[in-house]
Amino acid sequence: MLFCNQGLPMSEPQEAKESLSESLQQVITLLEKHKLVEGLVHKQYMPKHDLVESMVHKQNIIELQKKLDTLHSADVAHILEALPLEDRLNLWELVKADRDGEILLEVSDSVRQSLIADMDSQELLAAAEQLDADELADLAPDLPKDVLQDLMDSLDTQNRERLQSTLSYPEEAVGAHMDFDIVTIREDITLEVALRYMRRLGSLPELTDKLFVVDREDILRGVLPLKRMVVSDLDASVSDVMVADAVVFHPEDIADEAAQAFERYDLVTAPVVDANNKLVGRITVDAVMDYIRDESESDMLSMAGLREEEDFFASIWKSVQNRWAWLAINLVTAMVASRVIGLFEGSIEKIVALAALMPIVAGIGGNSGNQTTTMIVRGLALGQISSHNMKSLVKKELGVALLNGILWGGVLGIIAYLLYGNYQLGLVMMAAMTFNLLLAAVMGVMIPLVMTKFGRDPAVGSSVLITAMTDSGGFFIFLGLATIFLI
Amino acid sequence: MLFCNQGLPMSEPQEAKESLSESLQQVITLLEKHKLVEGLVHKQYMPKHDLVESMVHKQNIIELQKKLDTLHSADVAHILEALPLEDRLNLWELVKADRDGEILLEVSDSVRQSLIADMDSQELLAAAEQLDADELADLAPDLPKDVLQDLMDSLDTQNRERLQSTLSYPEEAVGAHMDFDIVTIREDITLEVALRYMRRLGSLPELTDKLFVVDREDILRGVLPLKRMVVSDLDASVSDVMVADAVVFHPEDIADEAAQAFERYDLVTAPVVDANNKLVGRITVDAVMDYIRDESESDMLSMAGLREEEDFFASIWKSVQNRWAWLAINLVTAMVASRVIGLFEGSIEKIVALAALMPIVAGIGGNSGNQTTTMIVRGLALGQISSHNMKSLVKKELGVALLNGILWGGVLGIIAYLLYGNYQLGLVMMAAMTFNLLLAAVMGVMIPLVMTKFGRDPAVGSSVLITAMTDSGGFFIFLGLATIFLI
Repeated sequence: MLFCNQGLPMSEPQEAKESLSESLQQVITLLEKHKLVEGLVHKQYMPKHDLVESMVHKQNIIELQKKLDTLHSADVAHILEALPLEDRLNLWELVKADRDGEILLEVSDSVRQSLIADMDSQELLAAAEQLDADELADLAPDLPKDVLQDLMDSLDTQNRERLQSTLSYPEEAVGAHMDFDIVTIREDITLEVALRYMRRLGSLPELTDKLFVVDREDILRGVLPLKRMVVSDLDASVSDVMVADAVVFHPEDIADEAAQAFERYDLVTAPVVDANNKLVGRITVDAVMDYIRDESESDMLSMAGLREEEDFFASIWKSVQNRWAWLAINLVTAMVASRVIGLFEGSIEKIVALAALMPIVAGIGGNSGNQTTTMIVRGLALGQISSHNMKSLVKKELGVALLNGILWGGVLGIIAYLLYGNYQLGLVMMAAMTFNLLLAAVMGVMIPLVMTKFGRDPAVGSSVLITAMTDSGGFFIFLGLATIFLI
Repeated sequence: MLFCNQGLPMSEPQEAKESLSESLQQVITLLEKHKLVEGLVHKQYMPKHDLVESMVHKQNIIELQKKLDTLHSADVAHILEALPLEDRLNLWELVKADRDGEILLEVSDSVRQSLIADMDSQELLAAAEQLDADELADLAPDLPKDVLQDLMDSLDTQNRERLQSTLSYPEEAVGAHMDFDIVTIREDITLEVALRYMRRLGSLPELTDKLFVVDREDILRGVLPLKRMVVSDLDASVSDVMVADAVVFHPEDIADEAAQAFERYDLVTAPVVDANNKLVGRITVDAVMDYIRDESESDMLSMAGLREEEDFFASIWKSVQNRWAWLAINLVTAMVASRVIGLFEGSIEKIVALAALMPIVAGIGGNSGNQTTTMIVRGLALGQISSHNMKSLVKKELGVALLNGILWGGVLGIIAYLLYGNYQLGLVMMAAMTFNLLLAAVMGVMIPLVMTKFGRDPAVGSSVLITAMTDSGGFFIFLGLATIFLI
């Protein structure tokens, strides 16, 4: 029941008897059969024009196409994402051309690129022509330049302007996520007249939970929730029933804050107005959910040093490109740490136990620093950290670090003493752990704050930076203390 | 405009002229004034009953309370979260008692605990009595046992049953997230009659976008979107206009899959039915958004080894408890890696450069492994990875690792040669990097898959495990190769 047959436009998705993973399995089985037959043909174990083979082949394709027709576009998209490139393109060819546009919108960026690379200009143009201006805006960055130009030329003035305006906003702005499926109404009519007008319309866009009340110049006067429309007196005028001071957004507002407002105030749709309060579009909860999902995914990916979402079945070379930047940075920081150790080679030659113990100090410092950084990055994202509470935060983190340092440093000191029979080595271990944890605490708070100050996303790369600090710092502190007190 | 004044129930949130962070700043300023006056009184720089002081004090409190009254509960919750414990409790006392329940629902778990700890049974009971059964279920785990019992006794049978049933489902089930704000209707009446019935109701619950069509036994027959209600002919019957096969959920369905269905099919609300198709509740998009947000946050936290969301101003001791488990595990894995190095102390004594170079091999392996694991964890969460594509995934990751190993291993080998003038050391470096990256690739794919196989969340701890493998493995491979070829 978490699965949905393709409905008519405007209809609600339908319940089905099978789950999405079951459909995926069916499609794969059909594809395998298809490939098997194709394989036999190519390898010429069978004469190419063998009637039986050809019939089996055709029947497979028909079965697959039938299966695809019953699936919701979002589900076809999901299946395409889960297939290796070759299978994916085979299946893509079987999808009816009039659904191409919709499905391209649903797949992830990297998969979309792989599908578009397989289509010619004619097919792309046909697919794009089925879409609204706001949907085209999502597709546009992946289209070849000439196709995009042809597309622009084919649009009427209003839609061209809408597409251009949506494209002009950065991904972080509300304007990039708005759509134009707005139903407007005047405030001086009665609900009875309004409802008559609705019935003449015959249907409302997806997710419509309110009408936008505007005057002759399209200036927003308020919003009229359907919820109120159906419970209010028919003689009442729109202006009596409407909400005059609803939450509105501007195209240049920060999308992240809009998303938080949707969550806080449980919105389904909200009007987007320009500086003169003129209605220019709307923002819907599904655009907000997509945005939240994308943001949290890109945070997770960038924390692991992946530049962008990677197609599971991307070529090895593409994957290497996606990951190399982070590895290169990591290589540089590792080299620095290595040179720090190099400074103390004399000490290590004398007490070789130092070489075995030093990664512990560095490693635990890195982990502890990452815990602090994660907390701060989260607090910054939620707007809970500002100058007024920074001092108490740093104090708390230093306290935690001191306690952990003495506690775990003590445990490690005892272990070092037991292993190497040198109590001074144990004391150096404990002191180094404590100092490195304190360093990790200070850096764990400072790095994301400084990155934010310079207008950078603190989720990207703060983990590399903190690890670089605690590695080099940990080696320096431990080997330095050992050189002073033990050699 | 991303900010909202407290509206009447059922009203839409209102636009305001100031942002949330501005309100936060105002409240802080007022609190500081308040504290300053209090401080002067306690330190007795002023006579305690000084008329002027007392008036200033009172005026401050009145101003603060006025400010709070204009704020939406979600915004008050946000401000409480951003305040250190003492200020938070001061502010909490000023919040009107009849808003306590609502605000407790909005704050994060850890902040809720700090507020509840400050309230007596009487206050808690009064706060809880303002809430619906589904809201109580969110609050219940944090309430003292005796308060919960008193609360249960005070509920009527229907609400007690609802609360108990909601509490009986685990956090991962749809049942734990449903609410009971359902409006039902019979299928054999006309829309005109239905609308008359609506108008008699006078108002509809938040987020109502559809009515649930049921028969006499509460068996779900379909759903009637308001969107259809306002555009359809008044003479049509409910059964003609309703959607008979809408997406429905069962209380025991997995919440994660329900969330994906909401995203895929752009739902606002959906009915929850039992095994006999009897309507038991509904699930709304705001519950789904909260769930998505919570999940992605807990993934992020658990990847950094934080057991749960931490109150920024929690005591040092509480924070140490939240973080210690991970640090303890990390300590064990670091000790293992240290003992691996200990095996090769003889080799390090002979070639001390090994000590300086070994953390590079281990560190880059760890990073690369974490990239792979993050990709796999994400693919598992999206349902894109299953047995049919595992082989091609492992092959791809091995290819990436091999390429990276030869590339970066080569660079490092050259650097090692330049630093130490020993070309054999450079070759060992390159070989060790390549092998450790291959190990990281295999482990990066296997660890999350094996964890999922054993029914565990792959996001929790897979990063520790992979780092443990690449650290110990990296040291062993590098020092082992060096011992064989260089000593």
